Amino acid sequence: MIFRQLFESTSSTYTYLLGCEETGHCALIDTVVETTDRDLEVINKLGLTLNYTIDTHIHADHLTAAVKLKALTKSKIIYPGICELPCMDIGAKEGEVIKIGNISLHPLFTPGHTDHHFAYLLDNGTQQMIFTGDALLIEACGRTDFQSGDATTLYKSIHEKIFSLPDDTIVYPGHDYSGRLVSSVLQEKQRNPRLGNNKPMEDFVEIMNNLDLPYPKKIDFAVPGNEDCGVCPENTPEELRAPCEIHDQG
Amino acid sequence: MIFRQLFESTSSTYTYLLGCEETGHCALIDTVVETTDRDLEVINKLGLTLNYTIDTHIHADHLTAAVKLKALTKSKIIYPGICELPCMDIGAKEGEVIKIGNISLHPLFTPGHTDHHFAYLLDNGTQQMIFTGDALLIEACGRTDFQSGDATTLYKSIHEKIFSLPDDTIVYPGHDYSGRLVSSVLQEKQRNPRLGNNKPMEDFVEIMNNLDLPYPKKIDFAVPGNEDCGVCPENTPEELRAPCEIHDQG
Repeated sequence: MIFRQLFESTSSTYTYLLGCEETGHCALIDTVVETTDRDLEVINKLGLTLNYTIDTHIHADHLTAAVKLKALTKSKIIYPGICELPCMDIGAKEGEVIKIGNISLHPLFTPGHTDHHFAYLLDNGTQQMIFTGDALLIEACGRTDFQSGDATTLYKSIHEKIFSLPDDTIVYPGHDYSGRLVSSVLQEKQRNPRLGNNKPMEDFVEIMNNLDLPYPKKIDFAVPGNEDCGVCPENTPEELRAPCEIHDQG
Repeated sequence: MIFRQLFESTSSTYTYLLGCEETGHCALIDTVVETTDRDLEVINKLGLTLNYTIDTHIHADHLTAAVKLKALTKSKIIYPGICELPCMDIGAKEGEVIKIGNISLHPLFTPGHTDHHFAYLLDNGTQQMIFTGDALLIEACGRTDFQSGDATTLYKSIHEKIFSLPDDTIVYPGHDYSGRLVSSVLQEKQRNPRLGNNKPMEDFVEIMNNLDLPYPKKIDFAVPGNEDCGVCPENTPEELRAPCEIHDQG
């Protein structure tokens, strides 16, 4: 399997490339419209064909490149199934494996950061790897104060779907804001300040409900834009529109 | 491949189990005599046969279980080749692959913490995994003030043998003292306070030469004991001798 962990620095987002060496098929998890060209360059250099873009959820902090990559490569757009958006090609559902060539990717319904969030699990033959999106971050987790987020729900998702995996499962987060790239299930079970050492649900809920975070800068255009799979909505600030433009390749 | 990251809490040592599913062979990297029974239980439960114990170097902070495991399982003892100790069965050399069933483990000569230290690299089919021993730790590195350690040498080992690997190589350290389990090459290149952000060699040497660490508690018996592949030497404190005893199994 071919694997790349790519970083977009404005939103501190990790985009993951999963490629099948035998078939040349690949998928990207959580793209960012600003790094569309970088992602395509990586894919082309590796001689891969992009089959799918997979969004773990409707992001509030950046625009997905899903629709742009579809226009450029004919990739199919995978979004959480319960979103039921006109722009998506495939709705992810727990129990319905996504095949990327010979790679099997398992969607795990992990609501709480948003009410529709999915994480993705795969077995690399040695360990499991989980792409946790914004459900679980390294020594942190996604906020729960927008998009029908709910701390109790997130606590249950993390415990039932992520902390129940083998301890040496590698955790690949959707973001990190201080240069960390990987963790493991045991590391988060021990060290995560909001969840570690068997912190009870009430404590987690109290922490989450008192984070006092600033209003998300891009949410007003990013959420409607991502509900269109990455089309810039009318209220996108002028200076941020350029990456959304899809130029005719013909 | 079967993989387990095991922890010994007194010396904060990670022992790694690498097992081949097809042949049932396995090896342990950096065992600790106090956790011999735990390690054997893990191996037996998985139905594996222990072929090798591999020590990254002659440890100063704990006794290896190499000789005890050899007595109990007939495993062979792999030590750095340049140690040329009578108790070792195989001397690791860079370029000479160690086969554990179908697994290929690559010794990397990485002196500096000691003058004979080896790290071990393997490709799990998706990423590389490096077992860094005490050469590189998470946001730290092994001390360089004993056992012919040398900061300049360690800096070169880390840069030439570890930081030259692909960025997404998973780093499995020999120890961690605060519950972290994994890192990656890029994470250490960015975040390691002694080495990150292209810190020049002179700065690293100054940091290492001014750590002002306490004298290692076990060094006076651990080093000679490990030079015998884990036999308790005469000066081992009475209360620490029990794990070294090898009882006749017949």
